[in-house]
Amino acid sequence: MPENKMNRDELQERLLQSPFHQWLALDVTEVNEEEIVIRVPWRSEFVVNVKVGYMHGGILATIIDVAGDYAVAAKLGRPFPTVDMRVDYHRAALEGDIFAHARIVKLGRLFAVAEASVLDADNNLLASGRGVYAVAAPK
Amino acid sequence: MPENKMNRDELQERLLQSPFHQWLALDVTEVNEEEIVIRVPWRSEFVVNVKVGYMHGGILATIIDVAGDYAVAAKLGRPFPTVDMRVDYHRAALEGDIFAHARIVKLGRLFAVAEASVLDADNNLLASGRGVYAVAAPK
Amino acid sequence: MPENKMNRDELQERLLQSPFHQWLALDVTEVNEEEIVIRVPWRSEFVVNVKVGYMHGGILATIIDVAGDYAVAAKLGRPFPTVDMRVDYHRAALEGDIFAHARIVKLGRLFAVAEASVLDADNNLLASGRGVYAVAAPK
Amino acid sequence: MPENKMNRDELQERLLQSPFHQWLALDVTEVNEEEIVIRVPWRSEFVVNVKVGYMHGGILATIIDVAGDYAVAAKLGRPFPTVDMRVDYHRAALEGDIFAHARIVKLGRLFAVAEASVLDADNNLLASGRGVYAVAAPK
Repeated sequence: MPENKMNRDELQERLLQSPFHQWLALDVTEVNEEEIVIRVPWRSEFVVNVKVGYMHGGILATIIDVAGDYAVAAKLGRPFPTVDMRVDYHRAALEGDIFAHARIVKLGRLFAVAEASVLDADNNLLASGRGVYAVAAPK
Repeated sequence: MPENKMNRDELQERLLQSPFHQWLALDVTEVNEEEIVIRVPWRSEFVVNVKVGYMHGGILATIIDVAGDYAVAAKLGRPFPTVDMRVDYHRAALEGDIFAHARIVKLGRLFAVAEASVLDADNNLLASGRGVYAVAAPK
Repeated sequence: MPENKMNRDELQERLLQSPFHQWLALDVTEVNEEEIVIRVPWRSEFVVNVKVGYMHGGILATIIDVAGDYAVAAKLGRPFPTVDMRVDYHRAALEGDIFAHARIVKLGRLFAVAEASVLDADNNLLASGRGVYAVAAPK
Repeated sequence: MPENKMNRDELQERLLQSPFHQWLALDVTEVNEEEIVIRVPWRSEFVVNVKVGYMHGGILATIIDVAGDYAVAAKLGRPFPTVDMRVDYHRAALEGDIFAHARIVKLGRLFAVAEASVLDADNNLLASGRGVYAVAAPK
C-alpha cells in the first residue's frame, strides 16, 4: 500500500467542497496510514422513526460510501466515483454523533475496495459495509 | 404475492412521518400491485461535485432503500427494518427530479427482497439496487 | 445496447473451455438480444444437506456469476473478469435441473452490471443476484 | 459474543456431512474464539481459464459462504441458511491451496453477519466478502 498523499486538513477541505457533505457537517477526525475516521454530528432531520427517534439508514449508507471513498483519497490524492456499495445494518442508531472508520481492502489498478464500520460514541457497531471505487476513471 | 394493503395516500402519509423523508420531499407518484414509484425533487444540497453538479450517491442509495421498503409496505401494511442494501451506480445524476421504481423480488416469511431502479426525467438509468427487509421483526 | 456478437454455439463452445464449467455440464439453452439462459443439470455432489437433499448455495452463486458474465460475452464477444458479485437466496433448491436467466442491467465503458435469476423446472425462483464485470480489462 | 459451542473436530465432522464439501475436500485448519480457517486443496476441476490456469470465482464465492456460515456455527452449534452473500474479487487464484479466514461481524437475534478473506499459501488476498445467515431459522 502506498503512503498517504493527503493529510487531515487536505482531506477535510476536499470533503467540504460538496454541498451534501456540508449539510452533513462531515468532520475528518483522524487519518493515518491504515484508517480514516469521519464524524457525522447528529441532525434532527436524520430521523426515520419519530417514536423511537433513530437515524435513517440512508445516512448510514452515505457515510459508509464517503468514508470508503476518502480512505482511497488519502492514498491516491482525490476521491473516485463509486461503482457499487453494500451496507449491513446492525443496530438502530439513536440520537448522537456517529463515527465511520474506513480502510482500504484492496487497491487495484482499475478498482479499489474499501470497507467501513459506523460506531456511536459508546463504540456500538451500528452499520458496516463496503464500496468499490473506479480508480482508473479520468478526473 | 398478496394484494396491496395500503393505497397511494396511506403510503404517502406513512412515508412523510419521517423527518428525513420530509427533508427529501419524497412523493409516491404511483403504486399498483406490481410496482411503487417514488419521486425525489432536486435540492441543491444533494450535490457532491460542484463543478459538474451531480447528485451524491448517498441520496441514490437512500431512495433505493426507501422505495424497496415501501414496495414491501404496500403489500404488508407497514415498512420494515432494512437488513442490508446494495447499490450499483450507472450514470451521474445531474440536476433534476429522480424517480425510484421498486418491486418485490421475493416475499418470504422471515425477510423480503425488493429491487429498485432510479431514473431521471428522460428515463436514463442512474442507479439500481436491492434491499433485504426483516418482515418478521416486531413493530 | 449493441447487437449480440456471439451466437448460442459460440457461447457454448467458449463456456466449455473451462474445466469447472465442464464439471458443471453447463448448457446454453437460449440466447437472444435480451437474455441468456444456462441450464445446470443436477449432480449428487451438489448437495449441502443430506437429510433434505438441497443444493449448495455455492453452486447457485456460481451459476449467477457465469450467466451474468455470458450475458456480457454475448454482446462483447468474450467473458470478462468479475469485479464483485451478490446473491440473494430465496428457496431451497431440491433435486433437479436449474436454469439461470441473465440480462445486462448496464453496459458501461469500464464495467458492466448483469443480473440473473435461477429457476427450477417448475419456475420457482431459487436465487437471484448480480455481477459487475471489468469490460475494460485486457484479454 | 458467546463462547464457542463447537470445537475443530465437531465443526469438521459437521462440515463433511455435505457431499459438496466432501468434493471440495474442505478442512478446518484452525478455530478459536475470534476466527475460523478453512483450507481448500487445489483440484484441476476448479480452473476457469485454461491458458492462465486460475480458479473459478464460484469456488471462491462458495468458500466465503461456507467459512462465514461455520464462523457462526462455531458460536451457535450448527450452520444456518444463507440469506445473501457478496464477494469482491481481488486477484486471480493460481494453482495451489487456498485458505478462508472468517469471523462474525454481528451476531443478532434474527440474523448474523460474517465476513471472510481468502488467501493463498503466500498470504496474497484473492477474494473477500460477507454472508448474512438466518440464525432464527428452525432446524
